Amino acid sequence: MPAQTQQHAHHDFDFSAWAQQQLAQVEQALTDWVGVGAPAGLGEVMRYAVLDGGKRLRPLLVLAAAQAVGGHGQAALRAACAVELIHAYSLVHDDMPCMDNDVLRRGKPTVHVAFGEARALLAGDALQAQAFELLTPHEDQVPAAIQAQCCRILALAAGAQGMAGGQAIDLASVGRQLTEAQLRQMHSLKTGALLQASVQLGAACGQVDAQTLSALHSYAQALGLAFQVVDDVLDVVADAATLGKTPGKDAACDKPTYVALLGLEDAQALAQDLLVQACEALQRSGLADTRALLALAHQVVGRSH
Amino acid sequence: MPAQTQQHAHHDFDFSAWAQQQLAQVEQALTDWVGVGAPAGLGEVMRYAVLDGGKRLRPLLVLAAAQAVGGHGQAALRAACAVELIHAYSLVHDDMPCMDNDVLRRGKPTVHVAFGEARALLAGDALQAQAFELLTPHEDQVPAAIQAQCCRILALAAGAQGMAGGQAIDLASVGRQLTEAQLRQMHSLKTGALLQASVQLGAACGQVDAQTLSALHSYAQALGLAFQVVDDVLDVVADAATLGKTPGKDAACDKPTYVALLGLEDAQALAQDLLVQACEALQRSGLADTRALLALAHQVVGRSH
Repeated sequence: MPAQTQQHAHHDFDFSAWAQQQLAQVEQALTDWVGVGAPAGLGEVMRYAVLDGGKRLRPLLVLAAAQAVGGHGQAALRAACAVELIHAYSLVHDDMPCMDNDVLRRGKPTVHVAFGEARALLAGDALQAQAFELLTPHEDQVPAAIQAQCCRILALAAGAQGMAGGQAIDLASVGRQLTEAQLRQMHSLKTGALLQASVQLGAACGQVDAQTLSALHSYAQALGLAFQVVDDVLDVVADAATLGKTPGKDAACDKPTYVALLGLEDAQALAQDLLVQACEALQRSGLADTRALLALAHQVVGRSH
Repeated sequence: MPAQTQQHAHHDFDFSAWAQQQLAQVEQALTDWVGVGAPAGLGEVMRYAVLDGGKRLRPLLVLAAAQAVGGHGQAALRAACAVELIHAYSLVHDDMPCMDNDVLRRGKPTVHVAFGEARALLAGDALQAQAFELLTPHEDQVPAAIQAQCCRILALAAGAQGMAGGQAIDLASVGRQLTEAQLRQMHSLKTGALLQASVQLGAACGQVDAQTLSALHSYAQALGLAFQVVDDVLDVVADAATLGKTPGKDAACDKPTYVALLGLEDAQALAQDLLVQACEALQRSGLADTRALLALAHQVVGRSH
């Protein structure tokens, strides 16, 4: 099954051309929107945190899902940018001294190193607010029902029952031994919630039945978990230049990881297994064209940074 | 004019009974909603930051404005809580060591003192997300158009062109001499934006024409500025027990204040002048019942803490 779906992904569909086209749109929109109209001392920090960096996995998931369901184009582009702003703000705050105290991100000094803690804190706060602003343009641009639903999806994924909640569990777990179930729960909130929200946001830009939505949910869940497992693997096997951040950091901080829990080989096998689950979910979805979603799953598991 | 409107406020309308009834609803809703479903280590911090404290001026403004325009009740209650969550998160982050480094708030240890910086940061982030979650319940509870508009109003007021932007300007202004125009601009963002948003949110829960909206906008603008002027006055004349926070702090930090700029008497006169402006705007609004809004303006200028 994975070999077959992989072939399908590689031969029938030029993922790289698709991604390049989508990314050009996203980068342009982010450049046009992020921190524009902010006071000088704040706007530049917001733009530093968001522009020229990141794989834009979440925006691509939004756009791939929106394309699969025939969703509203302007709504999808705004949702793609909004979820990236939430992701970017979370990195800014996570890197701060009171959290992970990291100095390197995407090969650049982290925001608080470059601009100081106060401006890092404020820029993160402002980016979260701007995410919801992007989702709610005037009604002639995006139907109000889509705006409201996207805000709800993103707020739930970003908040205490999603990403921020996962961060809190992560914080409380340093130096403690977690079971696989606890580790899975923590990551399903910390990184999984926003990845799942990306797929949900894309789906919310169109009309889908409950069965399709459930299949997309399974896809997103498997992909979110695979992402974290691969992250843990790369933290062990990659070097700083490839990774663009400090490797070996999680292990050094005595943070629980899938590699620590399962060993390297079993963690790698788990990632492959989750890829199969994601592909199967897409086949169950009943959607005609899931090639971009399929390719994104392969990319998440096959990435080297 | 102010004497007359004050009489009107005091004799025809039992503001204290009205406020007590509204506040009971708000407190109940906040108790039911804030941090519920959050991981244990995060939910308690969110609740500490929000419950049992604060004058709830912003929620009262939302509810008073919604009542004046005959707005949707459930939408107004949710907006009232949402704006309070944004206010509460901003206090948590502002009090942190990298910002104002304050240890006392509403007579209690500030959040980072009680729970540590990391959890203070996360709880603030989660409160902001929850504000937008509260604004976007399922469609059968609040019409989607109101949900979308409220999200937009709150996002703009909280973000880089509102509260966070004002904070950034404040941060950059420490130790510098500002003109009255610059000081007014800074405060109109830092505290004014959220107070104005409160009135806008209430108005968005109903249907109002452009003239009424413009009058409400003038009311909110005068009230927001009056609030800050009175804050600066109280920082000089009140003691810690009455104020519930450290007095004289702004002056000690060499922060620009209206008292420093105008002197105590002229600052007090400015507050009275702004009260008159707010009352006149309400008379221009064409709304039948603005008694709660009127009483709130008197309360803001007459408060002792």
